Amino acid sequence: MAENKINVAIVGASGYSGEELVRLLLGHPHVNLSVLTSRQYAGQPMTSVFPRFAGYTGASELTFSEPSIDLLAEKAEAVFLALPHGVAAEFAVPLAERGVTVIDLSADFRLNDAGVYHEFYGAEHPSPEWLAKAVYGLPEVRRDAIGDATLIASPGCYPTSILLPTIPLLEAGLIDPGQIIADSLSGVSGAGRNASLPFLYVECNESLRPYGVPKHRHLSEIEQELSLANGSPVTVQFTPHLVPVNRGILTTLYLAPALGQADDFDQWTAAVADCLAKRYADEPFVRITGSERLPDTKNVTGTNSIEIGWAADPRTKRLRIFSAEDNLVKGASGQAVQSFNIRFGFDETAGLPI
Amino acid sequence: MAENKINVAIVGASGYSGEELVRLLLGHPHVNLSVLTSRQYAGQPMTSVFPRFAGYTGASELTFSEPSIDLLAEKAEAVFLALPHGVAAEFAVPLAERGVTVIDLSADFRLNDAGVYHEFYGAEHPSPEWLAKAVYGLPEVRRDAIGDATLIASPGCYPTSILLPTIPLLEAGLIDPGQIIADSLSGVSGAGRNASLPFLYVECNESLRPYGVPKHRHLSEIEQELSLANGSPVTVQFTPHLVPVNRGILTTLYLAPALGQADDFDQWTAAVADCLAKRYADEPFVRITGSERLPDTKNVTGTNSIEIGWAADPRTKRLRIFSAEDNLVKGASGQAVQSFNIRFGFDETAGLPI
Amino acid sequence: MAENKINVAIVGASGYSGEELVRLLLGHPHVNLSVLTSRQYAGQPMTSVFPRFAGYTGASELTFSEPSIDLLAEKAEAVFLALPHGVAAEFAVPLAERGVTVIDLSADFRLNDAGVYHEFYGAEHPSPEWLAKAVYGLPEVRRDAIGDATLIASPGCYPTSILLPTIPLLEAGLIDPGQIIADSLSGVSGAGRNASLPFLYVECNESLRPYGVPKHRHLSEIEQELSLANGSPVTVQFTPHLVPVNRGILTTLYLAPALGQADDFDQWTAAVADCLAKRYADEPFVRITGSERLPDTKNVTGTNSIEIGWAADPRTKRLRIFSAEDNLVKGASGQAVQSFNIRFGFDETAGLPI
Amino acid sequence: MAENKINVAIVGASGYSGEELVRLLLGHPHVNLSVLTSRQYAGQPMTSVFPRFAGYTGASELTFSEPSIDLLAEKAEAVFLALPHGVAAEFAVPLAERGVTVIDLSADFRLNDAGVYHEFYGAEHPSPEWLAKAVYGLPEVRRDAIGDATLIASPGCYPTSILLPTIPLLEAGLIDPGQIIADSLSGVSGAGRNASLPFLYVECNESLRPYGVPKHRHLSEIEQELSLANGSPVTVQFTPHLVPVNRGILTTLYLAPALGQADDFDQWTAAVADCLAKRYADEPFVRITGSERLPDTKNVTGTNSIEIGWAADPRTKRLRIFSAEDNLVKGASGQAVQSFNIRFGFDETAGLPI
Repeated sequence: MAENKINVAIVGASGYSGEELVRLLLGHPHVNLSVLTSRQYAGQPMTSVFPRFAGYTGASELTFSEPSIDLLAEKAEAVFLALPHGVAAEFAVPLAERGVTVIDLSADFRLNDAGVYHEFYGAEHPSPEWLAKAVYGLPEVRRDAIGDATLIASPGCYPTSILLPTIPLLEAGLIDPGQIIADSLSGVSGAGRNASLPFLYVECNESLRPYGVPKHRHLSEIEQELSLANGSPVTVQFTPHLVPVNRGILTTLYLAPALGQADDFDQWTAAVADCLAKRYADEPFVRITGSERLPDTKNVTGTNSIEIGWAADPRTKRLRIFSAEDNLVKGASGQAVQSFNIRFGFDETAGLPI
Repeated sequence: MAENKINVAIVGASGYSGEELVRLLLGHPHVNLSVLTSRQYAGQPMTSVFPRFAGYTGASELTFSEPSIDLLAEKAEAVFLALPHGVAAEFAVPLAERGVTVIDLSADFRLNDAGVYHEFYGAEHPSPEWLAKAVYGLPEVRRDAIGDATLIASPGCYPTSILLPTIPLLEAGLIDPGQIIADSLSGVSGAGRNASLPFLYVECNESLRPYGVPKHRHLSEIEQELSLANGSPVTVQFTPHLVPVNRGILTTLYLAPALGQADDFDQWTAAVADCLAKRYADEPFVRITGSERLPDTKNVTGTNSIEIGWAADPRTKRLRIFSAEDNLVKGASGQAVQSFNIRFGFDETAGLPI
Repeated sequence: MAENKINVAIVGASGYSGEELVRLLLGHPHVNLSVLTSRQYAGQPMTSVFPRFAGYTGASELTFSEPSIDLLAEKAEAVFLALPHGVAAEFAVPLAERGVTVIDLSADFRLNDAGVYHEFYGAEHPSPEWLAKAVYGLPEVRRDAIGDATLIASPGCYPTSILLPTIPLLEAGLIDPGQIIADSLSGVSGAGRNASLPFLYVECNESLRPYGVPKHRHLSEIEQELSLANGSPVTVQFTPHLVPVNRGILTTLYLAPALGQADDFDQWTAAVADCLAKRYADEPFVRITGSERLPDTKNVTGTNSIEIGWAADPRTKRLRIFSAEDNLVKGASGQAVQSFNIRFGFDETAGLPI
Repeated sequence: MAENKINVAIVGASGYSGEELVRLLLGHPHVNLSVLTSRQYAGQPMTSVFPRFAGYTGASELTFSEPSIDLLAEKAEAVFLALPHGVAAEFAVPLAERGVTVIDLSADFRLNDAGVYHEFYGAEHPSPEWLAKAVYGLPEVRRDAIGDATLIASPGCYPTSILLPTIPLLEAGLIDPGQIIADSLSGVSGAGRNASLPFLYVECNESLRPYGVPKHRHLSEIEQELSLANGSPVTVQFTPHLVPVNRGILTTLYLAPALGQADDFDQWTAAVADCLAKRYADEPFVRITGSERLPDTKNVTGTNSIEIGWAADPRTKRLRIFSAEDNLVKGASGQAVQSFNIRFGFDETAGLPI
């Protein structure tokens, strides 16, 4: 069995995405979790920071260490980066150059264009030469490329919830690319495990608030990927909201028929339903609820699944599509593990709750 | 002082809207709360059902009684109806016919057209002859008519959050009436104080879910009022979501410039801002936050205020407008009291937290 | 592998304990879930009621059926009963008489004395002759008896959190049996998946309340088991509180040294710590946190683990012991599966998150 | 009217207690809020930090300023200090020496003994000479002294919930002073408005945890006041827990009959009930619920009221008393305003929701 296990490291293992990676990788049948780094907790046993993992096999032997390229390259064949953008690149590039497979959960290598990075992230891209080599790690869309990648840029939480329902419809020419609206609700874990006043319990409980409009950073990758699916540039209205749950993203998409397709609305609706059903029929983590039942985040919390359902509106000749995911799993760490599974030839669902 | 007090009754005082009416009217300087009815709790002291009001002056003398037209007509000059639709009309009509001022929080008299009522509420309207006589009680829009009304149909919670930002813009011809999208988040009190599985704590906590699409009942009054403001029929996409807070509605409106106004987007945005600022400059309960700060329900919970802010999006040449209200106050009982104040010539803010 | 699987049924599978059994047994390596019954949902696919299980292997084939003794006896070697007390006995006895192993999550067979049952449950015990034959299914205390049992009475959620810390200390003669106080906080799922006003979201959110004093039904089994450990009758003060979380019980125990042991308080504290540490050293589901770190329900939610920690108080010469568990797992369904594993000779942790 | 208004300042107005003071004092009929200080927000309009107060009369004119003794002494007759302990004394003493009435919400002047302060707060008391001059501001116990005080030390949130039910029983000799246990649950606002990891939404939601045992700082004032009521030293077991609500403290007290009074338990229970009922019959903010209905924090949130109820336990011959308060109102800012009202001769309920 030992030959079946990959040595894996997590850099930045003490944030919420990092914690979720610890959970998933400790239970992964083909992973030996060899290194966890955390500047903040270096030297402390992992279970003293995350007591909930105390009962996991192997948990008691893990101690956070200072991040070091040499240590990581020596001890791990694959490294997950759960770091802020900007910092991630400092690890991703030297590790990838040494042949280590890097799965980066930050935004550093999601964009193809350094100029867009600068526009949305407000800084020069640190390693633009790697942008073309990195693969945007949305498994349902880029499975083959992920299988060959050295540097996988795992998608953001909001983009995942928006891209999966929308890409097939754009590729099929079913929706008007000029009228896409994405309205998203996110749980507070999306804000990270950082001491920050707006995310205190008292500030979030009994509060509903939009934020980050009109140019939330995730918009850059949303538009990039939708433009690729569309074959020409797409501009999107995206509105994130913060709502008092720990986990979960619920996205409501407002979509209109492509030019000329509104005439027979029922036929268009059926075509949309058919397109999504077929596209995701064999995907283990995409659950099409159709119009029978609308998605609810509580159905996917803790899992790598995304629910996608819809409601046609004959009165306005438009369609709403809803998606529900766990922002920390399908929206972050679970999806990253899914890419890891693809990259190393394991069953794509290995270690991932459905 | 006695001549300054109106005898007031609440029918259906044991639901959440009824409870909120009790709160507001017990503290109202010009109200003598003479009758509270509740079939469920008839004979019980009010404070045994709502202990939180035990310290209010006069609370200990209130006992729920069976609802009776005669009793109400005898004991009250004004009657608030916090009843389900269909049931409300059974009280509203006989009371109004006897000259009692009725402020109905149900949907029974909000629509002008009995056919629309039938379409959205699935039943024949019980008293269509009263539809034309009832006044839709949105004070910022119908202040004068409310002042003369015998039967005031107080607006629904969602409609209030949608109409106040949108009506002025339609009246001014600033927005495209064919592209209005209203995406709303509501706290669970909106579902009423009824034992029902989907609204149990465990079912709502850590859950985000859309519902009621595409034809939530409130859509009927939303479209009616927007059509009136527009001068011709308006069809709206409206999506309500249930989120885990007790109170609050956060509405995100997606709006586009009226035909021909998109060319100078900055000028259009300024015109929208100016329109809303001027329209609501003297309104005590409308707080324009502009684009500086976005609305948050926690800023208005417990009050009759609504926050309205916006974010222009030069990339898509569209505008988001956000509104935040307490669904039980400005969205229900507070607004009803505001209409009461207008009707009886009191200061419009009497008894109402701002 | 097939010979390694037991056919298992769940009766009353649509409540919260039933749902949790579905979750655990669908993922159990040695279980074939053959029958799910629910009067309320008979005829409906399981995943239409619990969409979150849609991705589990075998889930799509499960449909709720009407409960029937014949069906259950024919299709299952082991039956879990997640039914109200009183109703459970109607299934437990005939099934047990036909040789089916019954794991009853209700209170019907937890008590040894039909008189105590009558006192606490307000009804004659329906099958007193089975009280002596049933085994109280607290694995850490009754492992051997569980292995031989036909009818296992799985403990209540509160009792589990109280008995595990207290029994070893009573057996060792370390604490005063006359001064035991148990103060417990419970999440709302403990109230069951029943439409009931006091457990609506709005009624529980932002509410902290005691209830069920002084004779909560669980007190009967708490005192029974503590009396057995003590060798003579023990009377306990037990106060449950309802707090707004979905899952979790946090129990605070106030304990005093046994007669004559208060003199050297440090030595007594050390003896208590030693007693608990040794007793639970090899127990997979009991996590002793000692005095270093206090238990927190969020460390055990979703798992079958219980955390036990303490704080000595030299000023009052008393000790607080804290325990944290998931009321639906270690406090109900997980513990029942643990007993099932013992009974059928599987690894005790099979199918159970730690 | 002007002569009827006192100029009042709040120092440290940007924390949760400070915010609550702003709410209460903006609505107070006899207060002119002349100065708000906050180092963090100096120079910013108050309503930019607390938009919820935007509609209050006078709110728009308030700007946070740097704290300065001279400014405060010049502009205010009464100063509320909502500062951390240690810092509060730096303002309290010079202001009191200049004749300004100081109402200190910190712990700096609650204790009579500088040694106890050192023991519990880990620092030398900065102004021990003022300890004897300060008055512990629990109005129901020290009303007369508060009326004459220059420096009022307003009680802590937990102590208020414990002292009000217990002091009358100790004074009456009804309970055993050696067996008092206080088990308290607190909402997260008690931890203050400080960016701190353990109080993030995600860390508190779905978490139940004890903390601060066995010597929470509030224990010092609890024991001091109970010892005074008892006439000899009292030692208490006090266990605070953090639970996920914004506001509210629910305290469960475990009490035993005083020596010799256990024989007729019913008589003792009646005497306890009578003692509390009589003691608080005329107190506007103490609501005795008796044994009919148990306290619930949601009945008092936002108000200055405390609910006190009980449940006798004939089986153990002990009594549980429960109290529920809003930790920020009766447990902090509301009680401070109550003392202010007493001190300046206003109606004790002025400006305070009941």
